Amino acid sequence: MKNFEYCNKTKIIFGKGTENQVGSETAIYAKKVLLHHSGGSAVQSGLIGKVKESLKSANVQWVELTGVKPNPRLSLVREGIEIAKKEKVELILAVGGGSVIDSAKAIAVGAVNDGDVWDFFDRKRATEKALPVAAILTIPAAGSESSISSVITNEEGPWKRGINFQCIRPVFSIMNPELTYSLPLYQTACGITDMMAHIMERYFTKERNVELTDELCEGTLRTIIRNGRKIFSGGENNYDARAEIMWAGTIAHNGLLDTGRIGDWASHALDHELSALFDIAHGAGLAIIFPAWMRYNIKEDTPRLARFAAKVWGVDGAFYDLEQAALEGVMRMETFFRSIGMPVRFADANIDPSCIHEMAKRAVHFGPIGNYRKLEEKDAEAIYRIAAQ
Amino acid sequence: MKNFEYCNKTKIIFGKGTENQVGSETAIYAKKVLLHHSGGSAVQSGLIGKVKESLKSANVQWVELTGVKPNPRLSLVREGIEIAKKEKVELILAVGGGSVIDSAKAIAVGAVNDGDVWDFFDRKRATEKALPVAAILTIPAAGSESSISSVITNEEGPWKRGINFQCIRPVFSIMNPELTYSLPLYQTACGITDMMAHIMERYFTKERNVELTDELCEGTLRTIIRNGRKIFSGGENNYDARAEIMWAGTIAHNGLLDTGRIGDWASHALDHELSALFDIAHGAGLAIIFPAWMRYNIKEDTPRLARFAAKVWGVDGAFYDLEQAALEGVMRMETFFRSIGMPVRFADANIDPSCIHEMAKRAVHFGPIGNYRKLEEKDAEAIYRIAAQ
Repeated sequence: MKNFEYCNKTKIIFGKGTENQVGSETAIYAKKVLLHHSGGSAVQSGLIGKVKESLKSANVQWVELTGVKPNPRLSLVREGIEIAKKEKVELILAVGGGSVIDSAKAIAVGAVNDGDVWDFFDRKRATEKALPVAAILTIPAAGSESSISSVITNEEGPWKRGINFQCIRPVFSIMNPELTYSLPLYQTACGITDMMAHIMERYFTKERNVELTDELCEGTLRTIIRNGRKIFSGGENNYDARAEIMWAGTIAHNGLLDTGRIGDWASHALDHELSALFDIAHGAGLAIIFPAWMRYNIKEDTPRLARFAAKVWGVDGAFYDLEQAALEGVMRMETFFRSIGMPVRFADANIDPSCIHEMAKRAVHFGPIGNYRKLEEKDAEAIYRIAAQ
Repeated sequence: MKNFEYCNKTKIIFGKGTENQVGSETAIYAKKVLLHHSGGSAVQSGLIGKVKESLKSANVQWVELTGVKPNPRLSLVREGIEIAKKEKVELILAVGGGSVIDSAKAIAVGAVNDGDVWDFFDRKRATEKALPVAAILTIPAAGSESSISSVITNEEGPWKRGINFQCIRPVFSIMNPELTYSLPLYQTACGITDMMAHIMERYFTKERNVELTDELCEGTLRTIIRNGRKIFSGGENNYDARAEIMWAGTIAHNGLLDTGRIGDWASHALDHELSALFDIAHGAGLAIIFPAWMRYNIKEDTPRLARFAAKVWGVDGAFYDLEQAALEGVMRMETFFRSIGMPVRFADANIDPSCIHEMAKRAVHFGPIGNYRKLEEKDAEAIYRIAAQ
């Protein structure tokens, strides 16, 4: 087990009706906020109206910036920074999913740091200061509601790049599973895949003797799979299934499952190129990449992949032929992804394999990717090729 | 799943050599601290010397208060409060196990709240202010290093009572598993039992649809049992086993495993009377009480107890006779406790059963105990009688 530090200060406010607490919680930090959202479903559902009422009753003023899209854009971030500075807001309040929260985090960084905000994403600068960020989560997926991460797409490349700074961890996040009833099943599936990927990126480590976090990872994955199946068996409005998924999405990415180990994160890097070039949903991209990554790495640490197959996917007979057990686990994972409507091959998502060489090149732009196994350009290309089969 | 709020601000600094960071971490909060410890093993091992060196190099002054014992005493707390006020310390630094940290927390409350500190333990008052508390943990057990709890014994009763205030959660806790190599096996076993009890108090809930936390509880329990066995099979100096136990002890009591559910806590109340009257170690008392509590409640929610038997103790055949499966789980737990040298009946710890009636009366002093099943005096008496068999 590696030495580690762990501290997560986000206050989670979880359950029915909790969105009505947003005014009083916000007032602790700010008299004026930038209210950031997509302008779409959160308005139609009446959530934004409720948020404004709650802010009003707590004497919190707001300016609004809408238009966040999946794979949130740098241009909107720049616009938000200008507004935040001009209007002297004291907190960025995100209402939405990971894209909105990530966009809010980038604005929070740019609002108090001079220079080009993209420099932080381009790994030219780091920072310890940002405006406070808070969130009302409507899409359980990215874990951004209590994470230190933000991923933004620069349309000029297009480049999709991430930052990880403690200062952008939300001060509070409100999570009402009822708000996710109206989420389309496709987005629900993308979210489930994204949170599973967050756990798997941490699970596949070369660090030995991380039994507690292995157990926590496996238990969280099983919970997601079981409750995902419930939702996809007519349980769209099943509060408890939605609640398990929502809380699991936070646990998956709040740092707890990292303690004592080093995650891999190559699959996220490989997906970033896929979704930058093809604008495919992050979760859908991961459903394509992860099985391919596992198949490519099946001999890398077969016992760990076999354990994953046994503990998460219930594969039996792992003792006589570990490689077969490991492969069986990957196949069951693919079957699960397919059952919730996710693509698992390029063809399922109409991705043109002729871009493989370019994507592989871009994926290793900052050098080899992954920690479980360092991947060079040729490895990235091989994994894309498996996914294209 | 119940609505909940969750926020744990303790910064955990975990791993080899981390005690040397105490000076720089303390300096963030204070120029002068009350250094609180037992005066025993932490001095002999050289740890206190190292701590003083680290404080010195960070220009942090200290006054010292030693003499904390298991089941920490109110009289020493009162002494600490006087010193803290007189010397105007800005933080209470605990070096030791749960008793030292609990004592430090009580001092932290008394130092900034006028009146008798016992009033808080006697449920006459509550507070939101205390001096900051920090810890270097040497005994993984109570989870006090990141919890909101403190339990103190008032010798005049004797009464053993607890408080739960957010303001006493440590600002940071340093955890180096190497510091636990020298822990006697008996204390190691008490710690293992204590952390298992913390999880079981939460596990036994009537709240349905708390699958994620069920999984996390079960996984943490399995990790403790497996690594406990390693330590008790010649692994006293096995870093990884000690590290798993130490981190599990924190997870067991940092609030995560409560999310969405209501714990029971009757067994803790029943043990408090046992250890108040007989000065038995908290963990040893819990090893006696918990099996008796389970046997008494075997028909209360048999499927949950059978699940506990299956998931934590590997009991098979849980489908045809759930009650038998549940009982088999309790017996395996008793066997485990015995295997690490814990008592599981009154006779094992030389406890005089003639006090049962008095203990039962005292246990319900504030009214019925427990949430899984409300226990009146007669129930408490019946459980003590099972433990006395």
